[in-house]
Amino acid sequence: MFQPKYEHYNVPLMRDEKIIERPADQNTITKRYGEEAVQFIRKNKDKPFFLYLAHNLPHVPLFASQKFVDTSLRGLFGDVVEEIDYTIGQVLHTLKQQGLDKNTLVLFTSDNGPWLTFKDHGGSAGLLRDGKGSTWEGGMREPTVAWWPGTIKSASVITDMASTLDVFPTIAELAGAKIPSDRIYDGYSMVDLLTGKGKSKRNIMYFYRGAQLRAIRKGPWKMHLFTKTEYVGQKVQRHDPPLLYNVEHDPSEKYEIGKKHPEVIEDLQKEIAQHQATIKPVPSQLEIPLQKN
Amino acid sequence: MFQPKYEHYNVPLMRDEKIIERPADQNTITKRYGEEAVQFIRKNKDKPFFLYLAHNLPHVPLFASQKFVDTSLRGLFGDVVEEIDYTIGQVLHTLKQQGLDKNTLVLFTSDNGPWLTFKDHGGSAGLLRDGKGSTWEGGMREPTVAWWPGTIKSASVITDMASTLDVFPTIAELAGAKIPSDRIYDGYSMVDLLTGKGKSKRNIMYFYRGAQLRAIRKGPWKMHLFTKTEYVGQKVQRHDPPLLYNVEHDPSEKYEIGKKHPEVIEDLQKEIAQHQATIKPVPSQLEIPLQKN
Repeated sequence: MFQPKYEHYNVPLMRDEKIIERPADQNTITKRYGEEAVQFIRKNKDKPFFLYLAHNLPHVPLFASQKFVDTSLRGLFGDVVEEIDYTIGQVLHTLKQQGLDKNTLVLFTSDNGPWLTFKDHGGSAGLLRDGKGSTWEGGMREPTVAWWPGTIKSASVITDMASTLDVFPTIAELAGAKIPSDRIYDGYSMVDLLTGKGKSKRNIMYFYRGAQLRAIRKGPWKMHLFTKTEYVGQKVQRHDPPLLYNVEHDPSEKYEIGKKHPEVIEDLQKEIAQHQATIKPVPSQLEIPLQKN
Repeated sequence: MFQPKYEHYNVPLMRDEKIIERPADQNTITKRYGEEAVQFIRKNKDKPFFLYLAHNLPHVPLFASQKFVDTSLRGLFGDVVEEIDYTIGQVLHTLKQQGLDKNTLVLFTSDNGPWLTFKDHGGSAGLLRDGKGSTWEGGMREPTVAWWPGTIKSASVITDMASTLDVFPTIAELAGAKIPSDRIYDGYSMVDLLTGKGKSKRNIMYFYRGAQLRAIRKGPWKMHLFTKTEYVGQKVQRHDPPLLYNVEHDPSEKYEIGKKHPEVIEDLQKEIAQHQATIKPVPSQLEIPLQKN
């Protein structure tokens, strides 16, 4: 089995602005992030806190603690996921132990789908099409677990649409904070959705890659203006007429049905025009120039 | 939405050897099978019984009772699955109501993967490759639920290999019956596996299509001698050397790794030779001639 050495990746481990280890020993990084999270909760248990535990794994290259190597049928990728799962278990256990579980919202999610070029080190999007970097469902549709005993119903499944864009307004509402009114935010509070008091306020999702709007979803309909499988040298393909899928009936985006639903395409084009009218371009915050097609 | 009429399919509904309805009203067939199953259990509750509830749906063409139409996000296919699920719920409810639940093994499984040519009317194999008629995992690997409160642990997940070939020896063992000793059976009792007393006795699975052995799985390894995507006019492809996949690390059979594991290929070829030496060809029980390649 391919097992990389962490010494070959000269990445720094930082505490605030200071480098404390280089190269970071990634074999124990998941374990250490987990321990740090537990300590943070213990230290801050008497006041309101926000913890952002952003595991860098299972991004490639993959590493797991000795304790977790060969514990999963799924190979090293599975071992890494087992260890991440263990750290989340420690977080939930600590919240219970400190009597904070009835008063804390835990959200668990991911930023993108599998990096397919890394084969079995890259994860799987299950039945969803394509992976990381693409605007097919396998690139951008992620599962999320929300945990808040007594407030969020245990083991219930929500199929409404929501986005990581909605996390900020959700947390702001729960904390009793107002979000600034000097600009348009693209998120909606998920409080009613998570507590079972209502449906999602989000009915539309825009799929961007860099500054390019590549697709839109509204209700069950997803329309692609541009598609690209990333990291394999494929060029961006423009679709005119756009491609249309019903991602409720066909979550794998296998069966293009635009010809049968010209009225849906027309409606989605209108949504895009309205959306784009609200956008004021700003200089990029990244030094990397925005992707051009 | 495409909604077929049952009158266009001139299929008979039979009780024992007698046709009682033609064409069968398939809109209500799932409901009626379910009701019949409940009545059978009530009638036979005082003696040992075997119930084989073989829903013909969700085979295409799809039909659902009015009560279930438009109840699922997944369209008509989902509605049909919802209704089947309801009938299974009725079976379990009846077993509990009659005090038989602690004394009855319920197995729920399927015969093959999705019929992909029927698109969103044909189901999905999730992350498994290909579908019905092929010997890729999406054609032949099926989930199974086993239910027997007090004897089978609730909500536990078994990843060991097992087959519908193993159902007969399992039921025979539970019923205290001996299976005939005048021939070789290809099944193994799953009693220890289901009750948590041991691992699966099956470590090998042979994948046939007609009389042709197309693939073998042993432990995590699956080797393909022949492959074919059915129903799309593709010819059977012979693979020499055979294709090799690790279906634990790579359940989607995406990453062929035969060159890295010649010793595995050699071992699997030996297993096939031993297996084939045990087989005595018999005349086909079907009038349809066996498939030739």
